[in-house]
Amino acid sequence: MELEKYRRLSKMARGIDKAELVFKNANVFLAHTGEFVEGDVAVAEGIVLGVGKYQGEKEIDLEGSCLCPGLIDSHLHLESTLVSPGELVRQAAQCGTTTFIVDPHESANVSGTEGIDYILEQTEDAPANVYVMMPSCVPATHVDDNGCVLTAGKMKAYLENNRILGLGEVMDAVSVINGNVSMHEKLNLFKGRVRDGHAPFLTPGDLSAYALAGISTDHECVDYEYAMEECKKGMQVLIREGSAARNLEAIVKGIVEHGTDTSGFCFCTDDKHIEEIRRDGHINYNVKRAVELGLPVEKALKMATIQAAQCYGLKHLGAIAPGYQADFVVFDNTRDLNVLEVYFKGEKIQKDEKVKIKPCAPQLKNTVHLLDFGEDRLRLRHTGDKAHVIHMLQGQIATEDLLEEVPFGEEAGERLFTSDDTYQKIAVIERHKHTGKVGVGIVKGFGLRHGAIASSVSHDSHNLIVVGDNDRDMVLAVQELVRLQGGYILVEEGEIYGTLPLPVMGLMSDEGYEKVNEALSHMIPKAHSMGIKPGFDPFITLSFMALPVIPEIRITPRGIYLVNEDRMLKQPFDK
Amino acid sequence: MELEKYRRLSKMARGIDKAELVFKNANVFLAHTGEFVEGDVAVAEGIVLGVGKYQGEKEIDLEGSCLCPGLIDSHLHLESTLVSPGELVRQAAQCGTTTFIVDPHESANVSGTEGIDYILEQTEDAPANVYVMMPSCVPATHVDDNGCVLTAGKMKAYLENNRILGLGEVMDAVSVINGNVSMHEKLNLFKGRVRDGHAPFLTPGDLSAYALAGISTDHECVDYEYAMEECKKGMQVLIREGSAARNLEAIVKGIVEHGTDTSGFCFCTDDKHIEEIRRDGHINYNVKRAVELGLPVEKALKMATIQAAQCYGLKHLGAIAPGYQADFVVFDNTRDLNVLEVYFKGEKIQKDEKVKIKPCAPQLKNTVHLLDFGEDRLRLRHTGDKAHVIHMLQGQIATEDLLEEVPFGEEAGERLFTSDDTYQKIAVIERHKHTGKVGVGIVKGFGLRHGAIASSVSHDSHNLIVVGDNDRDMVLAVQELVRLQGGYILVEEGEIYGTLPLPVMGLMSDEGYEKVNEALSHMIPKAHSMGIKPGFDPFITLSFMALPVIPEIRITPRGIYLVNEDRMLKQPFDK
Repeated sequence: MELEKYRRLSKMARGIDKAELVFKNANVFLAHTGEFVEGDVAVAEGIVLGVGKYQGEKEIDLEGSCLCPGLIDSHLHLESTLVSPGELVRQAAQCGTTTFIVDPHESANVSGTEGIDYILEQTEDAPANVYVMMPSCVPATHVDDNGCVLTAGKMKAYLENNRILGLGEVMDAVSVINGNVSMHEKLNLFKGRVRDGHAPFLTPGDLSAYALAGISTDHECVDYEYAMEECKKGMQVLIREGSAARNLEAIVKGIVEHGTDTSGFCFCTDDKHIEEIRRDGHINYNVKRAVELGLPVEKALKMATIQAAQCYGLKHLGAIAPGYQADFVVFDNTRDLNVLEVYFKGEKIQKDEKVKIKPCAPQLKNTVHLLDFGEDRLRLRHTGDKAHVIHMLQGQIATEDLLEEVPFGEEAGERLFTSDDTYQKIAVIERHKHTGKVGVGIVKGFGLRHGAIASSVSHDSHNLIVVGDNDRDMVLAVQELVRLQGGYILVEEGEIYGTLPLPVMGLMSDEGYEKVNEALSHMIPKAHSMGIKPGFDPFITLSFMALPVIPEIRITPRGIYLVNEDRMLKQPFDK
Repeated sequence: MELEKYRRLSKMARGIDKAELVFKNANVFLAHTGEFVEGDVAVAEGIVLGVGKYQGEKEIDLEGSCLCPGLIDSHLHLESTLVSPGELVRQAAQCGTTTFIVDPHESANVSGTEGIDYILEQTEDAPANVYVMMPSCVPATHVDDNGCVLTAGKMKAYLENNRILGLGEVMDAVSVINGNVSMHEKLNLFKGRVRDGHAPFLTPGDLSAYALAGISTDHECVDYEYAMEECKKGMQVLIREGSAARNLEAIVKGIVEHGTDTSGFCFCTDDKHIEEIRRDGHINYNVKRAVELGLPVEKALKMATIQAAQCYGLKHLGAIAPGYQADFVVFDNTRDLNVLEVYFKGEKIQKDEKVKIKPCAPQLKNTVHLLDFGEDRLRLRHTGDKAHVIHMLQGQIATEDLLEEVPFGEEAGERLFTSDDTYQKIAVIERHKHTGKVGVGIVKGFGLRHGAIASSVSHDSHNLIVVGDNDRDMVLAVQELVRLQGGYILVEEGEIYGTLPLPVMGLMSDEGYEKVNEALSHMIPKAHSMGIKPGFDPFITLSFMALPVIPEIRITPRGIYLVNEDRMLKQPFDK
């Protein structure tokens, strides 16, 4: 700390001078000792001076409410919410989350370092601490056709950026434990820093080899037993409660039942949608749920604050103690945990304040590269054999690989696959590098009729993905995606029913969350009325059909990918 | 980790290849989760690969004994034991301490950076991890005449040394909280690293200001209440159990009684003598005592291992988990906690192995600079007034400032102070820079008759200190100290009774611990037989009489120092 500033603050800490700001009559949560004490909290220049009896130039009487350190989301992807990064942070900050450990994996897969820079720039003046983990798996696998390759060499320039904390979730466990060169170049580049994991269901030996590589966290644990396996190996478990993946109940129940030492746990959201954040909350929801499940509130709060800060080496965050940043959430009491107010660096965060979304570099709004796409690219010659069919399953992102007889028609002397009530066509169109690659397949279980549904959000490469029961509507949807430079599209019988433009890398809107929510509130019910079965979120389910790391069968621009066999078929009728 | 090495180790961790070394049938303490599990521990190239079922090229059957991470002494001064640093580390390592966080405060006060380099060099191939905190208070106070001034500028060169972890105990709390320029230059130099504290009994406001400066540990807590005050402010409390200062019982009793969250605690010895280490143990003794006082062994072991490692940012130490260094202590069981074996980087530490003590730079054995010292320098003119007398108190290092009539005699027409059974003479002679400064005072309570006792160890400046009842013996003792270039001396009636040479900076022997113990075993009983009262360790008590930070009255080369008044008197008869 600069000396003159220290001298000024020291006098206030000692009570010689009045503090700038004092929170009076607070029930203060002391994260280091995990206890609540009654007292005043003195603050100046955004820093906590002390807890005790203080007088302030300005005083805020908390009348016995709980003053806690601002909460920490130890792992999330900002892109998944469809809104701009600053917009998401602002919304979550109103729930008490003042620190975000962000992995810009989606942006990097589309636009590489420019995508990462976008996330950094968009959040740099947000009312929160936004740190970034360098995405480790860009592309995610060897069968991905994404926008960029992020090598250790390209990451080097970011080591000096004090908002870059370490390496983002290392999904490619096989490359890690087999000692793949480029993977280990990245791991070694971040030696001494946090290297986040993503390692569901490895065998004990493989998990040891994975931890041996220096990976020290995981947010993919879905049950208590595996979480404990990771803790025992020295990994910090980030208990996830997001929109799709909800692991908190299983893990916290185990902790409560076994009286487990909780020092190895933190909380995260990973992917949580804006409308759910507004409805249920953010990390405050994780805390509340954990307490409802029987975890003492002190332990839950330590997981949400100091333990996350220590895990990521953030020595100035996560506690209310001298020298710590004055990020606070005020809860009504320790049982109900309703958020009354939030402070960032001692400044109150205003509710729903309208803030102009920052513009982004023009090239980030020009990422859907595709020329002359026509129906000819979607033709699927029927060979007479059975076809590999992607069976989409309700309520999950896993698929089933079926080998079935499928319908066909004749056209200009050729036998072609045709849709019916059971089978529709799916296509993934490479959109980054004009490679012209288009993969065409057959889906069952989704149910869309008389139209097409398309998206530029398709994990992890974010190529264009479209499902339809006729080629004309599918082409129209794809062409509209190109025109909008990304988004969600719903086409019905030759007409565009609705669009949600997502022009920023084809992933995010650059308008407020209200616009996003409004578009979705029309398009989703319509998609269901067109036949998409209940239990599917039309666009989210669609976005996972190109993700080649989840069993059993996927569609990629190169063709049909059989995940368990690590084998690519040019088309569904191939053996 | 280098890639080829990782590939080799990964195969062993996964059980594909046999591990180099496997500890079979261990009751393994997993520090992260604070629990014991039965299993095998695989090790290769000094690194833990995993805990589970393993086969090894070499196997050691532990037959159910407890395998724990090597223990960590989170704060100690190697010099205080009188033996060479390597010798001390080797002895303590046999007790299970495999990591030492060392503050070379004494060496630095004599020889500056050369003294620090000596500690680094002497311990670099010790069978233990020896880290160094840069001494922050050299000299300790503005009234000290020590050998060197260690400024932030001189410290800079050490920032790149990966064995230098941070800034050593910051004793000068007044300079900290008042914003003294040179103190804050040092604090700022170590920003982002650990800055150790030394802050007994500050007021709550002053302690907040002290923590605000970034100081994050303290080992000076003597009671539970103050320890908790520090924990609440975010400071880690290093519970000390050394030779003189024994704080463990008071603090651990409080923890047990209140069911306190123990994550804010570690263990240290600070100053513990070699003979006590051999008799009682080292950090293993802290663990054992804590368990006897009712602390669960799991919590005590976490304090002695992972919590200390985390406190000092040592990510590879303090646990038995993949990637951690294979430093182990084997206890017979979790109740008796007797040390059976110790391993450092997977290698067994041999008991009492004789190792050649490394030579040191010649200038470090030539640090007692004094010419022509004679009786004239000890003359104390009696002015007829009452004199300030240093009342030495049994069993403590604090003194009492008495104003008393003292005996005198006539010599060559001058009235001079003379000793009797109650009052003797004490002198401190500057020995670093030929300044010629000699302070002479009067002591009461010590009781030495018919001789003199002298030492070159006198905190914190380590000038020569001597007590005697006649000037001739005192001069002889001082001259012998000069001849030996440091040590402990006992003179009786004109003859040197015994010496313990401490030629390394006047602080340490360069022979084995046996020689040190042997010399002390003769000299200490003799000193008592010459009148020194029981309850005084003759040399240790003497070594604190020049320490100007402890109340109430001290002797320095500049004269008598009244601590509480921060006032120097040229001689004891001054007002």
